[in-house]
Amino acid sequence: MAEISTELANELWDTAHALTDAARAAILPHFRSRTLNAVNKLEGGFDPVTVADRAAEAAMRAVLAQRRPQDGILGEELGTSSGSSGLTWVLDPIDGTRGFLSGTPTWGVLAALSDETGPRLGIIDQPYTGERFCGGLGRAEMTGPMGASALATRAPRGLDQAILFTTFPEVGTKADRLAFERVRDRARLTRYGMDCYAYALLAAGQIDLVIEAGLHAYDIQAPIAVIEAAGGIVTNWEGGPVHEGGRALAAANAELHAEALAVLNGT
Amino acid sequence: MAEISTELANELWDTAHALTDAARAAILPHFRSRTLNAVNKLEGGFDPVTVADRAAEAAMRAVLAQRRPQDGILGEELGTSSGSSGLTWVLDPIDGTRGFLSGTPTWGVLAALSDETGPRLGIIDQPYTGERFCGGLGRAEMTGPMGASALATRAPRGLDQAILFTTFPEVGTKADRLAFERVRDRARLTRYGMDCYAYALLAAGQIDLVIEAGLHAYDIQAPIAVIEAAGGIVTNWEGGPVHEGGRALAAANAELHAEALAVLNGT
Repeated sequence: MAEISTELANELWDTAHALTDAARAAILPHFRSRTLNAVNKLEGGFDPVTVADRAAEAAMRAVLAQRRPQDGILGEELGTSSGSSGLTWVLDPIDGTRGFLSGTPTWGVLAALSDETGPRLGIIDQPYTGERFCGGLGRAEMTGPMGASALATRAPRGLDQAILFTTFPEVGTKADRLAFERVRDRARLTRYGMDCYAYALLAAGQIDLVIEAGLHAYDIQAPIAVIEAAGGIVTNWEGGPVHEGGRALAAANAELHAEALAVLNGT
Repeated sequence: MAEISTELANELWDTAHALTDAARAAILPHFRSRTLNAVNKLEGGFDPVTVADRAAEAAMRAVLAQRRPQDGILGEELGTSSGSSGLTWVLDPIDGTRGFLSGTPTWGVLAALSDETGPRLGIIDQPYTGERFCGGLGRAEMTGPMGASALATRAPRGLDQAILFTTFPEVGTKADRLAFERVRDRARLTRYGMDCYAYALLAAGQIDLVIEAGLHAYDIQAPIAVIEAAGGIVTNWEGGPVHEGGRALAAANAELHAEALAVLNGT
């Protein structure tokens, strides 16, 4: 794991905020626009890429070219570039493009910084509400309409008392879905449709679990950093690292994580 | 239908804004609080009533006692009181209590004013994002983080191009759910979890359809007023009035409403 001094940590956080500020400015003029130019990325599928998505990633890359040219970049829209520092910025300019196209305030700008061990810092930013959830390198905090506050996940409670989120009821493969539904059937309340905002709510101590499948590295690295800094735990469905993507189980604490993992796997 | 002069319309709108301002002030200190005091209203069910919910309705009633004592009140929390004006305020201080308890910005304060024909004005207010969607008596407008703008629903498009919302995938009875799923299977995109915010997005021209069941009058009267003022249409699943509650089909325009109604009823 790369050694990061306090001075470097401050520089990296300043860069992370500059990145997400640039993305906000690029995206907001397009949000809820009546002339949104959506393009289907996958033939036959529904994976809209907006003008805003590409403009935001270009703006984020311009910030990195100026401030941290020595770092690598892995971006959703514009691919990978290597660096010399051992650090890589992992960027998803608009996570939740379907939510964005529907006008909901549940999509977000995701930015993480990772080394070979996984994400070291992350930001989940919601430009429309003005909320920013930050975690890693000694920080766990949010800013928003009600000011600044510390992020801390919820204390342990049984799965039968837990609030569970996922974005779509159709989770992954058929087997994935059945596994998800085992947890859903034991949880107190299951809700849908929040995109990356669900991970932010978990870090902010509002909900207990998020379960998703089919994730890319850029979907999950920022949530991992924010949630872990707030006291939570994020793994794949086998209980191992998930920062390369796949199926994620995010929990407010280790006790609930263990209970949900067992139910997910039918053990 | 009660005749309402421009002067009276202005007075009623001023009252409606004062009502929702009072609700905002009563609710926001409790939102995302770590000590939220939820009580189960229905034995065995999950219908949390928060301190905020009751405080907000009391605050709204205090505004009406001062400004419009001659009007009736139908409130979710504190019941019905009759008036002498022929006008009734229909109040749901927190629509989407499960969303509220999960920390999502998708619940809302609903206030409508109705006469014997149905709602004449309505407000959908989201206190955390600072958004307010207003419709009726000549107005169709919203205010929010990006300023003020007119509300107007989307132009007609086929169901296969439409974005559909409902709060939970488990819609109403089993027959209701199967009917909903017929529409879902023909829509371009279906999303969940937005509570009353979905109706606001429809009025704002962001989505095309909202379908729900099991509604009370106080859940749907404000959405009806806002959506109709913005050019949309809201009926029950038979195509008749829904302001007394029940199963609602809200559409951006008459053409899509007719198509969705036919699919909903399998005709």
